[in-house]
Amino acid sequence: MERACKELFQGLRDAIRRLSMELRKDYLLDKYVIVAADRAKRPSDFMKEKEEERNNNICPFCPGNEHMTPEETGRHHENNGWKIRWFTNKFPAVEMSKGDGVIRTDKDFFTYSDAHGVHELIIDTPIHHQQMWDLDSRHLADLLGAYNYRTEELYRIPGIYYVAVFKNHGKEAGTSIYHSHSQVIGFNAVPSLVRELLDACKHYDGCPFCRIIEAEMNSERKVAETENFLSFAPYASVFPFEAWIFPKRHARALGNLKDCFFELAHMLKGILGSLKQLNCSYNIIFVNSPLDADLHFHIRVIPRISKQGGFEMLGSYINAVSPEQAAAFYRGEQS
Amino acid sequence: MERACKELFQGLRDAIRRLSMELRKDYLLDKYVIVAADRAKRPSDFMKEKEEERNNNICPFCPGNEHMTPEETGRHHENNGWKIRWFTNKFPAVEMSKGDGVIRTDKDFFTYSDAHGVHELIIDTPIHHQQMWDLDSRHLADLLGAYNYRTEELYRIPGIYYVAVFKNHGKEAGTSIYHSHSQVIGFNAVPSLVRELLDACKHYDGCPFCRIIEAEMNSERKVAETENFLSFAPYASVFPFEAWIFPKRHARALGNLKDCFFELAHMLKGILGSLKQLNCSYNIIFVNSPLDADLHFHIRVIPRISKQGGFEMLGSYINAVSPEQAAAFYRGEQS
Repeated sequence: MERACKELFQGLRDAIRRLSMELRKDYLLDKYVIVAADRAKRPSDFMKEKEEERNNNICPFCPGNEHMTPEETGRHHENNGWKIRWFTNKFPAVEMSKGDGVIRTDKDFFTYSDAHGVHELIIDTPIHHQQMWDLDSRHLADLLGAYNYRTEELYRIPGIYYVAVFKNHGKEAGTSIYHSHSQVIGFNAVPSLVRELLDACKHYDGCPFCRIIEAEMNSERKVAETENFLSFAPYASVFPFEAWIFPKRHARALGNLKDCFFELAHMLKGILGSLKQLNCSYNIIFVNSPLDADLHFHIRVIPRISKQGGFEMLGSYINAVSPEQAAAFYRGEQS
Repeated sequence: MERACKELFQGLRDAIRRLSMELRKDYLLDKYVIVAADRAKRPSDFMKEKEEERNNNICPFCPGNEHMTPEETGRHHENNGWKIRWFTNKFPAVEMSKGDGVIRTDKDFFTYSDAHGVHELIIDTPIHHQQMWDLDSRHLADLLGAYNYRTEELYRIPGIYYVAVFKNHGKEAGTSIYHSHSQVIGFNAVPSLVRELLDACKHYDGCPFCRIIEAEMNSERKVAETENFLSFAPYASVFPFEAWIFPKRHARALGNLKDCFFELAHMLKGILGSLKQLNCSYNIIFVNSPLDADLHFHIRVIPRISKQGGFEMLGSYINAVSPEQAAAFYRGEQS
């Protein structure tokens, strides 16, 4: 009897799982994801156990140790100290001193230049154990201000064609130093995601993202909405619990949104607060437009819960959390 | 004095590191990688400590437990048992029973179908503790035979447009079951890497990979060469120690290389033997051509040593091991 019950339950569970399996394409790109949501799993099943910081070395990002970092480029003052500070990365991926940054091609297939650009670190907070999801909206708004300031400064440098702004939180997201920090890399090429989005946009009259925002505003995937912003779990999410934030009005960069940084920070804070419950690694990327293009600026929050395997290396994806489930989680309807 | 020496050494090391920093583009795709090789690091510095298998559950992939897997689709016989066997995945990402597999688009941006196709597992070996890098070339050749057999069978099914063949080894590469196995997913879409390569090939007269093979045959990035195959570390490697294997003659799929599976297996064995020294997670993807196209078949071995962060999520990459270093490692000139 017990066995029969178990089998029945298993059968029902499998049937439900199958019903929820779907292939979906990215809004714009030729990128497919199989949404194979395991409905028996709740968001809390993805929760990671707390990982304590292991090393007890002196932290170069803490107040008092400013001499351990390269020379400060700037700071957001607070009282007698700083709230946020930035400087060139001690181990930069790109540098201005290296050459002319002109990209050349040898024998058709070998395209290269010196690793040309500026690689900066922004220390998000002076407090060692405060992570980004612990910052209040006011502090996050100041951080957006710092991102924007560095972005605009780096775009002014001739030969820099893209300024990538991103945040890595946790080991699975590629961070090696525990003290919360963000990165800005201005360099002489356009990242392939940005290039692909720009190419895809050419197939539409007007900005397709303006229309996607309109469509997601009333969907099951909506996370939150304010006067100027919409957040949602994208239709063909590649990563479990992926969330995007768009300004409703067409804007090319953070710099066009200066009047509402606090509102944006508050929306971001809501998403990060949910991720804190999962205690997971995540990346945030700030997808701004190159100067000579007009891409709709947005923010992608990318939790790094699942591992990518060979199927993903081919450019196909399997996501075990449907975007509809993810949005419900962010809306506080599941835990 | 000691301090001066240390500083001098540090300065020299930084200078060398800077000299070796370069931006490189993929042979064909608009994908850039910053090669920021740390020359002070040797391959053995990337070595992982041995991770023991943790759980002591009964293994469903071991001989004697065949009843624990879905019904066997086929096997490679050996003596009274099997050397390799395959069956439908118990938790398939795609299934044939689900619908018609036709991809539809709603309101311009919402493209979907049922998750349509076949998802099979191939058990690489009956021996629980034998990993792929432990198999001899004869066994690997039989495994290539099984990959090819399943690929050809699945391509025969109407509505299947791509058959993805891949192997995940180790936790960082996305595997969850320890007993060595490979996966075959035939489904109704073409993975984006394959689509992008096909699109890029259109810009050339003839197959660009045939010319790339020619160019890499005499480069510092060459790993090994036999009568019919060439292996090399690709010029703009995204992953540390990435290695590709190409048939020298233009071939669309494994099926065109049946006469030299042993030769190919032996070359693959050489690369896997090197990876065993690092004891790292890796993926192998078998990049075959869709039936209606003519992509140059190749194998990509992708060690999963580094974590991808926000910069990588934007589609730009930083690789701390130059392909020239990687090739020297595979050639046995570094350890």
